[in-house]
Order: sequence, then C-alpha cells, then structure tokens
Amino acid sequence: MNIVGVDLGGTNIKAALVDESGEISMQKTTKTFANEGTEMICDRIIELIKDLAQNEVVKVGIGSPGSIDRENGVIKYANNITALNGVKIVQKIKEKTGFDAYLENDAKAAALGEKWFGSAKNTENFIVLTLGTGVGGGAYTEGHLIVGGHGFGGEIGHMIVDPSGPVCSCGSKGCLETFSSVTGMREWVKIFKERYPDSLVFKHSENGFIDAKAIFDAYKEGDRLATLVVRKFNWGLGIGIGSLVNIFNPDLIILSGGISRANDIFLEEVKQVAHEHTYPSLSHSYDIIISELKEKGAILGAASVALERTK
Amino acid sequence: MNIVGVDLGGTNIKAALVDESGEISMQKTTKTFANEGTEMICDRIIELIKDLAQNEVVKVGIGSPGSIDRENGVIKYANNITALNGVKIVQKIKEKTGFDAYLENDAKAAALGEKWFGSAKNTENFIVLTLGTGVGGGAYTEGHLIVGGHGFGGEIGHMIVDPSGPVCSCGSKGCLETFSSVTGMREWVKIFKERYPDSLVFKHSENGFIDAKAIFDAYKEGDRLATLVVRKFNWGLGIGIGSLVNIFNPDLIILSGGISRANDIFLEEVKQVAHEHTYPSLSHSYDIIISELKEKGAILGAASVALERTK
Repeated sequence: MNIVGVDLGGTNIKAALVDESGEISMQKTTKTFANEGTEMICDRIIELIKDLAQNEVVKVGIGSPGSIDRENGVIKYANNITALNGVKIVQKIKEKTGFDAYLENDAKAAALGEKWFGSAKNTENFIVLTLGTGVGGGAYTEGHLIVGGHGFGGEIGHMIVDPSGPVCSCGSKGCLETFSSVTGMREWVKIFKERYPDSLVFKHSENGFIDAKAIFDAYKEGDRLATLVVRKFNWGLGIGIGSLVNIFNPDLIILSGGISRANDIFLEEVKQVAHEHTYPSLSHSYDIIISELKEKGAILGAASVALERTK
Repeated sequence: MNIVGVDLGGTNIKAALVDESGEISMQKTTKTFANEGTEMICDRIIELIKDLAQNEVVKVGIGSPGSIDRENGVIKYANNITALNGVKIVQKIKEKTGFDAYLENDAKAAALGEKWFGSAKNTENFIVLTLGTGVGGGAYTEGHLIVGGHGFGGEIGHMIVDPSGPVCSCGSKGCLETFSSVTGMREWVKIFKERYPDSLVFKHSENGFIDAKAIFDAYKEGDRLATLVVRKFNWGLGIGIGSLVNIFNPDLIILSGGISRANDIFLEEVKQVAHEHTYPSLSHSYDIIISELKEKGAILGAASVALERTK
C-alpha cells in the first residue's frame, strides 16, 4: 500500500505519495496560512491527502513540530501552528478520507525515516539530530524509537551542554539549541556584534535578517565574527554528541535538517569535539554522518511513521 | 524458583538467596582477594552459590562492575577485578553448579532491582543513578532496560554536565562523575584545600584518607570547604538529572548506592537545580527519590537480572 507523508510546518505543508521502498511518485506543497484558523488548515491538509491518493487507498503518516499525543492523534502543542493545538487531526483525516493516519513529532519522524529509507537501515541503534531553527532529536535504540515516559517525547535539543552558556528560550542555560541551531547562532551574532560591526554576516543579511546562509557564507570568506559563531555551533554540537554517545552507545549519529547540508563547514570539527568527550571504550564505536535523504528527509520521515506503526 | 544474587566487588563478593518477591532468606559475604587470580576467585563465587542454594535448583543473577558481554556471560573489563576480565563466568557457573546464570553491569542491575523489588514497580520509565566511588546509571524506558548499541551499556556517569569542569579519569572534562561521586568530591577537596587547610574534613579523615563521611560530617558542622564540595556535588547532579529528564522524559529518577543514603544533605538542592534545567513542559512530570532498597539494592539488583532475563 502506498503512503501519503505529510510534513506540517508553520510556513508550508508538504506532502508526497511514497511507496514502501521510499520512492516518491508525486509531491505537493501548500502554504500553511497558520493564522487562518483550524478548519481552513485541516481542510487544506485533507485536500492535499486526497489529491495525492488519487482514489487509491493509502496510509497517512504525519510529522508535526512540537509535542504530540500519538495515541490519540492530537498535536498537543506546536508554537508555530497554534491553530492545530488540541485538534484530533488523525480522527479528522479518517472521517474525511477514510484513511488510517499516524502522527509523530517531526524530529522523531526523521529518525524513523532514516531507519526505513536512509542510512540507518542496517542498525538498531542510532540517533538523529535535526538541525534547523531549533534542534530536534530522536533516539532509536535496540530496535525501537524512544518516545519518552509520557509519550510526548524527549527534548534532546534541550540537553545542557554548557551550564555557563547562553540563556535558552526554555528558561534553562546552555541547552544544545543555544549553540547548534539558527536561533542559537543568531544570538551569538548579537553577542559578538559590537566588536565586529563590519562583519560580512551583516552585509550578507537582507533587510537585517540573519540566516544560516549569511553566517556560513561569511565564514567561508574568513570573517572573524562568523568564525566565532561557527566554532560555538561546532563546540556545542560536539559536546552534545559526546554525551549522547556516552548515554546511548549508538552506532550512528545522523545529522539532518536544513543546516546539516552545510556539513563541509562543521562536520570535521564536530567529530573532533565529540571524540574528545566520549568515553574511551566508546570513542571508536560510532560515526557521525549527514543524512542522505537531504530535502526529502522530512517527507520520507512522515511517511515512515505510517510504516513503523503498522509493521 | 529461588534466585541467588551475586554482587561482585573489588573488595567483597556478596551473595544472597532471594525469592521471587525479593525476600532475602540467607546472605553470605566473602572477601574478593582480587589479586589471588582467576581460578581462586571463580571457585569462591561458585562455593558461595552452592552454599546458598542448599541442594535446591536456583537461578543465578550476577551484578558486576565495568563493561560486560551479557550474551556470552563475560566480564569484558572491570578495573577492580582484572583477574575476571575475559572470563566466561556464566559458563563456569553452569559447568560447576548446573545452574543457569545471567550477568549484568551492576548499575544496570540496580535499575532492574528497582523495577522488580523497589520504587519502580509501577512505572515503565525511570532512571537509576548509583552514587558511590563513581557514578553508574541505568535507564529503563517504555518497558525495557537500555543496554546500548554494542551491548556493553552506556556510561551515564560520563555525560558532560560542565565542559569547563574538572578533568575526568576518562580524559574528558566535567563528566557527572567529576562532581557527584566520592572520587569527584575528593578532587574538589584537593582544589579547595590550600584555602581551607584547617577544614574539619581533614580532622574527620583517618590517616589522611578522605571519604564521603568525612565530607558530610564536616558539612553538617557548617564547614566551609565541605559546603563548597557538597554544592558542587548537588550542582552537577542536578544538571545531569535535568538533561536526562529532557532526553528520556522519565517518571522517576531513583538515586541509589552508598552516597544516596546521605540524602538529607543533598536531595532538596538537587531537586531545585534539576528543576531549573528541565524543559518547562517536563518539569512537573518526574520525581527524584532515594532508593528504598538501601544496602540490599546491589544484591536484589543482581537477583533481578535472572528474573528479567527469564520473564
């Protein structure tokens, strides 16, 4: 049976028709228009699913930001699509399309995607970190995904990598996310800005909006501020990975998400920092790699949720 | 069927005859004499098991320090009983006694002990931290013990709680163990020693050997050096627990091992530090408690290994 994978985001809803080998035969994207209200958004999701299913019976897998209640198919809290919070999305899809749907947090869906279609096919022990606006994560250990005690998943991006680090949006200090995400890098740019007002980072930022590309481009040109920010990124990520290796002893750490594609900039240094922080007997037991699924990672992750739940 | 639980240590081998409800009917201890060589130590373990079994057929559960190969029943590396490294202890016991035996790392055995006989009976999601000479740990999540990718377990005591912290024996910096273990506290005493040469810690230490009791006794008398050391202990443990909650989302964190019994000194502050470092939506989802198994924790943990593997 084919699957429709749905990647919910605050800006776009992406969906694709996927077969069980991960081949995408059709893909559609629509704007989320997150402020248009619950019914409108749900209708657009359902429309997208029907469009892609083309009168076939399909299974539906959904990857959503935020915390989710997978048993009841409800998004508990996602701060960029608040209109969907508390909505029984899985039940709605069933009612309107007749299809069985399965909901998962997007970072955990990305982990499942690696297991079904990506680099983790041959291991039962790996961790996926999704590097983007924030840091998400999914740990898969001894053959199953860790979803955490209360079913709404852990927050790997909020493990503390440096208690003397920057204050995080969550109220704690030095979370992984304060170093190794776009949000984190943007804060580090602010911290260093007064010393480097002429940094290329600002020249590369349209309308004063600093994105990862501006920082990475400036870094490649040898810009000092960008170099400091990239070092913070690498340092935090390396320490975080070191701790995760010590805790979980995985075979693979797979980096995915938008920023992971800038791997030529950070991967070698992250590997070194992680190596310095792993327990000696574990330090040669794992590898850190970049997801091969690239921009298809989120959609294939969503699709794999349906496969994992019905396997 | 009754179980003989064997708690292997560098100084003592403790064993007990335990029934399936955790009742201990007989207990024996023998010196390890770790330098007497493989055969002698194995013979003592087998003698102990036979003594306790008293012609009944029993199952044997063994808790061992260090890294173990549970599938083949071999202690891979334990630095305080090196004579047993590489020895097929499970097979030897089977040959000499006819009993099926099951081997586990001692901190992970302690976690199983809490599940079978302790405070974790009614939860599928908890973490045990054993606080002693070092810090060990076992995470039990969604109904099973995490033993790590290569079967020889994670090293939770070596998660990094402060990358600017003290150098650890493992070569990394600021591992949980450098703060919240006897070894860690002893190093902090050295760091502060020159400023507080008259500390009560030294008065309470026989022959200059500083143990946890000396530090805790001095703390209770208001000693400044001891206060600083206990604060480091609490701070590291609180941050480590905060990260573990964010990663695993457990219902319970259970502190066991020798130092945990000084809970009147540290528990409240550890709870506060952990609270400051957990993700807001998780911060009321867990509790930190002291193991109720007390000095029986290690033996009951060892016994529970046999129960868990044959359940």
